[in-house]
Amino acid sequence: MSESWVNSGRRTGSDLHLELAATGSRRAALTRALRDAVRDGRLASGSRLPPYRSLAADLGLARNTVAEAYAELVAEGWLTARQGSGTRVAQRVGAPAAARVPRRVTGRAPVHNLAQGQPDAAAFPRTAWLAAARRAVGAAPNEAFGPGDPHGRTELRRALADYLARARGVRTEPERIVVTAGFAAGLRLLFSGSALQRGPLAVEAYGLPFHRELLTATGVPTRPLPVDEQGADTAVLGSLDDVRAALLTPAHQFPTGGPLHPERRVAAVDWARARGTLVLEDDYDGDFRYDRQPLGALQGLDPERVIYMGSVSKSLSPALRIGWLVLPAQLVEPVLAVKGEREGFTSVVDQLTLAAFLDSGAYDRHLRRMRQRYRRRRDQLVAALAAQAPHIGVSGIAAGLHAVLRLPPGTERATLKAAAWQGVALDGLGPFRHPDATGPAPDGLVVGYATPPDHAWRAALEALCRVLPPDLAAGDA
Amino acid sequence: MSESWVNSGRRTGSDLHLELAATGSRRAALTRALRDAVRDGRLASGSRLPPYRSLAADLGLARNTVAEAYAELVAEGWLTARQGSGTRVAQRVGAPAAARVPRRVTGRAPVHNLAQGQPDAAAFPRTAWLAAARRAVGAAPNEAFGPGDPHGRTELRRALADYLARARGVRTEPERIVVTAGFAAGLRLLFSGSALQRGPLAVEAYGLPFHRELLTATGVPTRPLPVDEQGADTAVLGSLDDVRAALLTPAHQFPTGGPLHPERRVAAVDWARARGTLVLEDDYDGDFRYDRQPLGALQGLDPERVIYMGSVSKSLSPALRIGWLVLPAQLVEPVLAVKGEREGFTSVVDQLTLAAFLDSGAYDRHLRRMRQRYRRRRDQLVAALAAQAPHIGVSGIAAGLHAVLRLPPGTERATLKAAAWQGVALDGLGPFRHPDATGPAPDGLVVGYATPPDHAWRAALEALCRVLPPDLAAGDA
Repeated sequence: MSESWVNSGRRTGSDLHLELAATGSRRAALTRALRDAVRDGRLASGSRLPPYRSLAADLGLARNTVAEAYAELVAEGWLTARQGSGTRVAQRVGAPAAARVPRRVTGRAPVHNLAQGQPDAAAFPRTAWLAAARRAVGAAPNEAFGPGDPHGRTELRRALADYLARARGVRTEPERIVVTAGFAAGLRLLFSGSALQRGPLAVEAYGLPFHRELLTATGVPTRPLPVDEQGADTAVLGSLDDVRAALLTPAHQFPTGGPLHPERRVAAVDWARARGTLVLEDDYDGDFRYDRQPLGALQGLDPERVIYMGSVSKSLSPALRIGWLVLPAQLVEPVLAVKGEREGFTSVVDQLTLAAFLDSGAYDRHLRRMRQRYRRRRDQLVAALAAQAPHIGVSGIAAGLHAVLRLPPGTERATLKAAAWQGVALDGLGPFRHPDATGPAPDGLVVGYATPPDHAWRAALEALCRVLPPDLAAGDA
Repeated sequence: MSESWVNSGRRTGSDLHLELAATGSRRAALTRALRDAVRDGRLASGSRLPPYRSLAADLGLARNTVAEAYAELVAEGWLTARQGSGTRVAQRVGAPAAARVPRRVTGRAPVHNLAQGQPDAAAFPRTAWLAAARRAVGAAPNEAFGPGDPHGRTELRRALADYLARARGVRTEPERIVVTAGFAAGLRLLFSGSALQRGPLAVEAYGLPFHRELLTATGVPTRPLPVDEQGADTAVLGSLDDVRAALLTPAHQFPTGGPLHPERRVAAVDWARARGTLVLEDDYDGDFRYDRQPLGALQGLDPERVIYMGSVSKSLSPALRIGWLVLPAQLVEPVLAVKGEREGFTSVVDQLTLAAFLDSGAYDRHLRRMRQRYRRRRDQLVAALAAQAPHIGVSGIAAGLHAVLRLPPGTERATLKAAAWQGVALDGLGPFRHPDATGPAPDGLVVGYATPPDHAWRAALEALCRVLPPDLAAGDA
């Protein structure tokens, strides 16, 4: 007698249809079909399954295939098999309907993206990167694919030491470099363990809110240093008694744009020496200087008192998640101790690829090309403002990927509203200001002129000019 | 009059030699040479530099080149320029000799590496990975090279959802998956922010010490669940009143090796439902099962009560730093909130490459090849033990990349010493035991038979057999 369990589904209490996928092994297809039937309730909790023989006959399968599928599902907890009572759907697997994950509401993408902090993503050197990957992955020793050294790959540290000495005036040797997943990861690494004492940190009165928040979350309160067109006023450091270290952007104050004045550079290092503290140098865009040679790193003045921090996030792409710390000799071991026994974050494949990319000169070539592109955009921005909004001052333009536009007092909020309305993404100067900062709080815009792809740049610039506030003083003349 | 400043060095108080690099711009070469001279004290603090004209004549450079180099060094803080007193070496830059970083003392590499936890690094599928990178990087939209989505790339989450449903019986949709930098990063993500309450966590009485330490450091105390050949005794969960979640290795208890018994699987899920808690499923080697089809994930029983955690660290390489969480619907947003606005760790290039690697079937092909290879090694291990050390029991061999060898009581330490002496790297069972575990504490070895490259495997196996303790009972016969 061949009862048709599958079509009549008498003993399962429902009309059971098992659809077996056409690909893959028959056993796997049956296992999956039965699992699905239990899940969505077609095979009810506690109900008895057909004997192997019957189901095999119905489905045109070997008896053994059915037996194996049942055994699999028993091992997984879907079915139970008891001597004398056959195979049944497990009682407790009440197959709750899986909740749907609500689709995330993401904001309308801006028509014109002038948000600061990003290089032109369309300019990522795909071909050169892949060529470097081919060389690097081909030449890597087998151990490269084992657990990663938290120090970072030697190949990369060697290439970085060469590059940083040559291009940024950093005094280093590969042993002082520790690879990180970017600037923020480096900051966390320094303060989350026992590498640095968790006392208050002097920061610039203008800076990235994200960094301040990260520090606060790590238990490091921040104290603002006044900022003017000569960068942070490091002479003030001496009067901040509880401060244990200072985080500065010497090459190009972020976001206001001045390079740190020579005397203030020296003052910062002298302070660190006299007080036994440290300066953290955030060299976020030091490779981009337009009107003269890049300004050498502050770290060069005293490698034992300055931690140099860099990444490829502005020069290549934030999608690679590669950065580095150049550490005072005595900090290397403590920082490595925080990282632990193995590299936990940064892809070794990408580390090797970046090393090959640096060694081949591809990094220099890419930077040269990007410098030309960004300088052209900066010149066009300055020219457009001079022609269409001569009352708007622009500063911080000797270097970097962004400019600061000085707005008439009280117009920042309205300008940002107008920008949002026109689909222009950009930042006001306000959010960058430290909550405890004193002194003037000018209205302004931070314009990331590097962000849009080349074809969209002109339109973005025009849209920007349209949202700028009019010259209120002009009517008085 | 042409004074020779460079060779006589009269005003600098020393015999100043400037060696200009032959490559690069003359200005950059001079800047570097002068910086070096200040650093190593050849140009003493406070000493006056030669006028532009003199140095230019001495070095055969344009006057302007010297002026620019001086200006550069003034901006960097090495020199000072005062009206009427010429250009001098800055007073305070006392050029401390940079300390050397002590070379790290790394242990002698073992001759035979049978440490657990690593796949055969020599088997990394370089060609297939590079082919996937080529396709992925070539086809990626430009925005892929902008700031990364902390959720993970859609391409990867889609590919993982397909793979995990097909191969591991995971019930998911791409929205539930959050990409991480590996298992440990996922664990930290769950407990370091506000995604999960930081109460005590039930763990298996045997497990990776690193995970316990990570949890403790995150403020999560652990409570051991007894482990036997049927995996963790999840029936005990009900009696642990303060426990908020349980971390299990259902497919292959780590390191003892049993699959979690079907009733214990169901008990774990039922406990989580009844108590409103969660099970964390560490599916660290679920893809490697040798004697039958892989055991489906526990998560399939209840996707709203089980967090499924996986990575490529065992299947491909720990050097890639890619893992994933499959989350209950209501946990997706809280976990993403901990990750922040942008991806901070995992390379987008590698995420896209892995997506292409999965979609092309290369991942399945690689796993099939590795399963064959590891199964062969496992069989050879079992055969060698049967022939040379029949008194040593071996367990946990139905799956995974390691086996547990049961040693005669009291011999673990001596065996490990003998192994170290013979250059065999492997772990004793002791360190995996939870410090608060009760019940028997057998002596044993954890043998990572996947770790050595193919050519070194036979010799490693022979070395292992040589260090095993003799059969003390044999003399009694």
